[in-house]
Amino acid sequence: MAAGLYIGIDIGGSGIDAGLCGADGALIARRRMPVVRDMERGDMLRKMRSLLRSLISIAGIPPDGVSGIGVGVPGAVDGKRGEILYTANLPLSGLNIADELRSDFPAPVYLENDANCAALGEKLAPGRESVGNMVFITVGTGIGGGMIVDGKIYRGFNAAAGEVGHMVIVRGGRKCACGRRGCWERYASASALAEDAAKLASGAGGAAIRRLCGGDLARVSAKMPFEAAGQGDAASQRLVRAYISRLAAGVTNLVNILEPELVCIGGGISREPDERLLNPLREIVYRETYPHGRARARLEKAYFAENSGIIGAAALCAL
Amino acid sequence: MAAGLYIGIDIGGSGIDAGLCGADGALIARRRMPVVRDMERGDMLRKMRSLLRSLISIAGIPPDGVSGIGVGVPGAVDGKRGEILYTANLPLSGLNIADELRSDFPAPVYLENDANCAALGEKLAPGRESVGNMVFITVGTGIGGGMIVDGKIYRGFNAAAGEVGHMVIVRGGRKCACGRRGCWERYASASALAEDAAKLASGAGGAAIRRLCGGDLARVSAKMPFEAAGQGDAASQRLVRAYISRLAAGVTNLVNILEPELVCIGGGISREPDERLLNPLREIVYRETYPHGRARARLEKAYFAENSGIIGAAALCAL
Repeated sequence: MAAGLYIGIDIGGSGIDAGLCGADGALIARRRMPVVRDMERGDMLRKMRSLLRSLISIAGIPPDGVSGIGVGVPGAVDGKRGEILYTANLPLSGLNIADELRSDFPAPVYLENDANCAALGEKLAPGRESVGNMVFITVGTGIGGGMIVDGKIYRGFNAAAGEVGHMVIVRGGRKCACGRRGCWERYASASALAEDAAKLASGAGGAAIRRLCGGDLARVSAKMPFEAAGQGDAASQRLVRAYISRLAAGVTNLVNILEPELVCIGGGISREPDERLLNPLREIVYRETYPHGRARARLEKAYFAENSGIIGAAALCAL
Repeated sequence: MAAGLYIGIDIGGSGIDAGLCGADGALIARRRMPVVRDMERGDMLRKMRSLLRSLISIAGIPPDGVSGIGVGVPGAVDGKRGEILYTANLPLSGLNIADELRSDFPAPVYLENDANCAALGEKLAPGRESVGNMVFITVGTGIGGGMIVDGKIYRGFNAAAGEVGHMVIVRGGRKCACGRRGCWERYASASALAEDAAKLASGAGGAAIRRLCGGDLARVSAKMPFEAAGQGDAASQRLVRAYISRLAAGVTNLVNILEPELVCIGGGISREPDERLLNPLREIVYRETYPHGRARARLEKAYFAENSGIIGAAALCAL
């Protein structure tokens, strides 16, 4: 990045995160505001502005001390016009966010899809300087994807590429909100795992998970089967193995199609210890990648964890 | 392409096609040699050289009148070194084909994967000048893929991208030679359709296909169910519908992941009339693409039909 201070904003369905980054991409300060259900657009924008003001006041810089603002949005954007084309769960579709921020901050505003931002952020991690082609996968409520091709964000024809979660891996399988059946995210998202774990907990073999959720099946999270598996619960171990094999199916598909140098996995799931997640995942993906014996895609977790999106959004300013 | 005459060679498992192309990419002359089972490398190279000599003699030009030779290979290549890294069914792995041709032709030799060549060739078709991102799919014995990103061939990290046929769409499904189960090409290749049609022909509802193959089930081809469906045979119509829906599953996956501007479908199947193949295929892909309502990928058949690979190989010389 060029010299200066940059703000990266990562807009999500449950919160908006903003970070101040230095010229080298390092995160200097970070603030978060929660997004509540049915929040109105005006309210959200007011709170976002005050979030940004508080962020720069931490660093003791004036609004015109910011050299650029990058914004990651869960949806499609028109980066050139600074407009959010659509977002699924936020009242921001059709908003020109560049115009909205201009009154407070004179710096140029850059807009990008959130998974693309995270991919860009992760490319800045140590050891990835030379990576030209990579796929970033974020495993959460759904499965999102961001792609880097030749060192640059790959957006597709209409800025909606990377919907990797809506790749069917089980034809005729579980119904997805997108209208298809058998989408990858219905089997390998954190939500899908939590759903499967709750189902396990409701049956005879589910004692360990029932204990972890205190008997409240609505509280079962994707972490619980991993935790129970780590404690030696055989049913949870089977569930986790099945889950990883489903995750691997989609990753292998992407590797066979795109042959990236790096597949980077983010989202809460990626914080599981390597011996529970990344190592068994690698084993399946490496075994199933075609053709066998060729140089293999690196499979790594998100280095910046929950900050990939902020760092990548700030990095937009330097592109 | 720059001024001059170029040779494009398309190496396939059953034959080697060579064409002489003009500076505008137009095919001037074309020759084919069959590749027989267990053909030896030396024999194949001798025949390929004589194929090229006969090709230029048609046009009445000397070997040094050729400005460049492009070669498409079904496998992975090292384009810089002119070496074929591997091919599945041909005795050419490890061959430096640039060295082999140099003694007869002084022109520079360019090497590329065959599906990438076909993609490049199809991009030269009328109406596609401005297409930046496209996916070419060749539906034959298997399903191969070639990708164009930002107007250039996308090769992946180790020149093996585009193995779209080995994308699992039916987890735990039909066994594939690649080691996985449920690969797209086991459901949507021409071979898979022929297999399914032969199965249909062996049962009670298979009279129409049995008639077309003269009772010899080993002769059932992918064309027959289309032909019988066109003649009104209900069982064949069901089979063709199921086939198109499987083909659409993989195409939709690719559109969701890559959002190309154009998906181009080649191989024998693509020569079926639009009302039997492309129109119903479009209907499913457009309905299932996520998110709905965005600009849609064009879905077209290969314009140059069996010549896409030759034309694209010749076009390598001008890149």
